Amino acid sequence: MTTEAQMRAAMQAYIDNFNRQDLEAIVDLYADDATVEDPVGSPPKAGRDEIHAFYQTALETGARLTLSAPIRASHGNAAAMAFEVALNYQGQDMVIHVIDVMTFNDQGKYSSMKAYWGPEDMKPV
Amino acid sequence: MTTEAQMRAAMQAYIDNFNRQDLEAIVDLYADDATVEDPVGSPPKAGRDEIHAFYQTALETGARLTLSAPIRASHGNAAAMAFEVALNYQGQDMVIHVIDVMTFNDQGKYSSMKAYWGPEDMKPV
Repeated sequence: MTTEAQMRAAMQAYIDNFNRQDLEAIVDLYADDATVEDPVGSPPKAGRDEIHAFYQTALETGARLTLSAPIRASHGNAAAMAFEVALNYQGQDMVIHVIDVMTFNDQGKYSSMKAYWGPEDMKPV
Repeated sequence: MTTEAQMRAAMQAYIDNFNRQDLEAIVDLYADDATVEDPVGSPPKAGRDEIHAFYQTALETGARLTLSAPIRASHGNAAAMAFEVALNYQGQDMVIHVIDVMTFNDQGKYSSMKAYWGPEDMKPV
């Protein structure tokens, strides 16, 4: 069982690793058989290779993540956090409002990630 | 298919109905066969009677909900929102940091709700 404190630390590590542009450290937060659905409603990525490729592309945007509110845990094996993604898309500064939900395996790795954001959550700034 | 705008409106209605203490209006946001897992990790409530009883108890606390950040939608049939719950528990003013994730059926009703908050998300203020 992964503790509440471990889940919170692993959520914060996602933000920090992303902002350090540390691709390998992001991917290491995931279990080898994890899935990523970002955004929810798109085809999930599954397994280490697909997840690595997904974050390689994501980091190439130069995006920066900022928590919108404190990380939430749960009474189970899941946690959630609201954050903003700031990026430049084709010369335009943009912000995306996102909520990520992660589930955890017993080793404290993410077994799944779902990113909730829709077309109207991405806006020019 | 429920539109992004319909999902956002139905999420905002949850906050507004709760703060008006309108039990029937909250329950009417749910499909008849919906499930509620609040907090995640507790036994889910299923169906209209259990959901009605859950919110009757919740409203008796006098809790007030305030969004922490804009509601997030998705590219699918789901939306999410971060909010704070202010309540008085045994004479002590408390706040709970929560993220709710709702999935929607084709009629725009919630088919499921999961509330992410852990023991450490509830604090005295």
